[in-house]
Parts: sequence; C-alpha cells; structure tokens
Amino acid sequence: MRAYSSDDGSLHLLRLPPGSDLYEGVTEAAGELGIRAASVQVIGALRSLRYGYYDQQAHEYQELTHDGELEIASANGNVSIREEEAFLHMHVVAGKEDGSTIGGHLFGGEVFVAEVAFHVLGGEAPVRERQEFAGLDLWPSE
Amino acid sequence: MRAYSSDDGSLHLLRLPPGSDLYEGVTEAAGELGIRAASVQVIGALRSLRYGYYDQQAHEYQELTHDGELEIASANGNVSIREEEAFLHMHVVAGKEDGSTIGGHLFGGEVFVAEVAFHVLGGEAPVRERQEFAGLDLWPSE
Amino acid sequence: MRAYSSDDGSLHLLRLPPGSDLYEGVTEAAGELGIRAASVQVIGALRSLRYGYYDQQAHEYQELTHDGELEIASANGNVSIREEEAFLHMHVVAGKEDGSTIGGHLFGGEVFVAEVAFHVLGGEAPVRERQEFAGLDLWPSE
Repeated sequence: MRAYSSDDGSLHLLRLPPGSDLYEGVTEAAGELGIRAASVQVIGALRSLRYGYYDQQAHEYQELTHDGELEIASANGNVSIREEEAFLHMHVVAGKEDGSTIGGHLFGGEVFVAEVAFHVLGGEAPVRERQEFAGLDLWPSE
Repeated sequence: MRAYSSDDGSLHLLRLPPGSDLYEGVTEAAGELGIRAASVQVIGALRSLRYGYYDQQAHEYQELTHDGELEIASANGNVSIREEEAFLHMHVVAGKEDGSTIGGHLFGGEVFVAEVAFHVLGGEAPVRERQEFAGLDLWPSE
Repeated sequence: MRAYSSDDGSLHLLRLPPGSDLYEGVTEAAGELGIRAASVQVIGALRSLRYGYYDQQAHEYQELTHDGELEIASANGNVSIREEEAFLHMHVVAGKEDGSTIGGHLFGGEVFVAEVAFHVLGGEAPVRERQEFAGLDLWPSE
C-alpha cells in the first residue's frame, strides 16, 4: 500500500487497488496506517455493491446488492475501536449509468477505483459498546 | 454530551442521543464544544426527516417530509457565524428500505443514531450576511 | 476571492460566486490558495449540472446533464497533481425539487451557492499517472 500523508499525520490520501473489497480495503488501510480514530471519505467506482438498511424495530440489517458498475458518489464514515480493534463504519451513495442513485449502510463491494481520505483524530479514540436501545455497538453519547 | 477530541482541537467525534433532532443536536454540540467555524459530516439513521429545496426564483424553501426510518447516507455541512451565533448549514442524503435515496437541504429529523465529525477551522470564522441575489445569509465571496 | 483559513493552513472555507462553474471554480480556488493536495467537500445549490458515469469496459465517460435548479446534497473529492498542475476530482449527489437525487462524477454546473471546504494535505502531494487497467490518471496504489 502507498499512502500520501500530512507531515503531522492528520490527513492521509490513498487509492485502493482494483479488485479490493471497499469495506475490507479501507479497514486494512486504516490498520496499516495505525489509525484508531478518524473521519473517512471515499470517491471512485465499483464493480458491485453490497449495502443496506438497518431495521430499527427488528434490530437487523437488511442487505441489498447491486451487481454491476456504479460510481461511488460519496462514501462517508469513521474509524473507531470495537472489541479492541480499529473498526470502520461507512455509509455510501452510489450512482448508476442513468444518473439515479442508491444508498445506505456499506457492507462491501468490488473496487474499480477508490480514492480514500482519512482525517485522523489525534487523541483518545471512541470505543464502541453495545447500546441496547439500538442493538448496535455505538460510542457513548454521555 | 461526550465528545472525543484531537489534542489540538482540530477534530471532534461524537454521537447524538436517540430522540435528538438532527439539526438542533448538531448545532447544540457545536455550541458545547465552543465551535465557531467547522466542516461537518454525519452518518447514522433517522426515525423521520424534514428536508427541502430552495426555490432560487421565489427565494423560498420548500419543505419535504419523510415519516419513517431512513439511513443517513451522508450529511455534509458547515458551522459559521450568523447574527453573532454559531449557525449550522447542512445538506443530507438519506436511504430508504429499498435502497432508493432522497436528499437536499436539512431542516431536521428525529435521530436514531447520528455519528458526527466536526473539522474545526482554527482561525477567523466566516460570518453570514444577507446576499440579495439569493435571499440568503451567505459568506462574502470577495 | 475571499477564503477563511485555519492559522496552520489545514482547513479553508469559502463561497464561490454565483454564475461560477462548480468544477472550474473549485479548481481555481485551490490554485489561488496554493493547494496541491486536499480532501474537498461542497454543499450549496446549482442552476444546472453536468455529471456522469465512467464506462469501466469502454474506458469512456458518459455525460449526463440536468438543466434547472438542484441542491448540492453533497460534493466530495480531492485535489492532487496531474501533469504538474493541481487537479480536482469530485463526485456529486444533487437533489431535485421533489427530493429525488441524481449523482456521479462531476463535470461542471452553474453555481447558485457553493460553500467549499478544503482539508489540506501538508505533505507530499499524490501525482496522477495513467493506469492502463482503468484508462484513467490515478495515484499509485503501491
């Protein structure tokens, strides 16, 4: 992996290689850079996408898939600590050939091009813990 | 409120509690952190959304509502000064259960989960003033 | 042009004047600020949009147009070096009057309001070079 980094370590730009999984690739890049907490943005293009929707009543993710090329119109998220490891939470908006868009929670997708920006938090990393109201691992809000 | 902050104050991560209003909650968090100027990103999920469209001819916002659960696929915006107070301007893209998306100017919405990143401007804050061409309070461009 | 900048030069906020082209305006602002590498976000509103889709097989962009007002629900991208000059790569999601969204690669569009945040990389700038797998000028990934 090659990353381009601010001298003070606050910002990193890099491209994932084609064929990477978008979710795994960003997670692995964070690991290689030693990032424990960050805000993350990605643009690029995909060969496929797995994304979804969290059912707030059933406390279950519904997974949707798109087979075929898409633009990554935006992917926004963050890195923080979950079970003592750096964990990526990312949402995505993707554009189809006709310009229409789909979006939601990012599970993964095959990368064609993915240009990643990590904005590093230079301080105590938030830690995700189970929050029963949501059935999700979330940062404390208080 | 609990925030996770860079030692130099340049980046803050935090989660809004469930039941917060997305617009008011981000505004109040900026206030508690003493933020006068920042770039802001949010991902998460909503129980409802009020968003809209600015009619550039009539100089009026048109408000749209969505009652029911949505993913916050992205929310991007900024904090700056308007009438001597920190003011949030944020746009949103939200994903439905079927993966389709809606978006525009953010008025508000009931938070299920909202993970917020403030990228603080450590310098003179922009001040919004009425710009007649738009009928909106905007930063000087010159 | 007037920009509001962090004392350490890491973040700049500014508004493009109405009638600017979104792509050219952000590129020119980067030039005036001497930015060679950055992550960029924009929100605002447009009078028209030229956007598109990259055909990953044919190695060609397909350009789509929207004539008429749109919200810039998000515009995310980056600045890096291509042919020795600062080059903008930006993707967009735009919202229509009915709240529906379109999105993809940004070619340009007439600005009504565009509020821009540049997060500057304070280090070696990535350089775009032709990558044959994609038919595009991309940063090295290794």
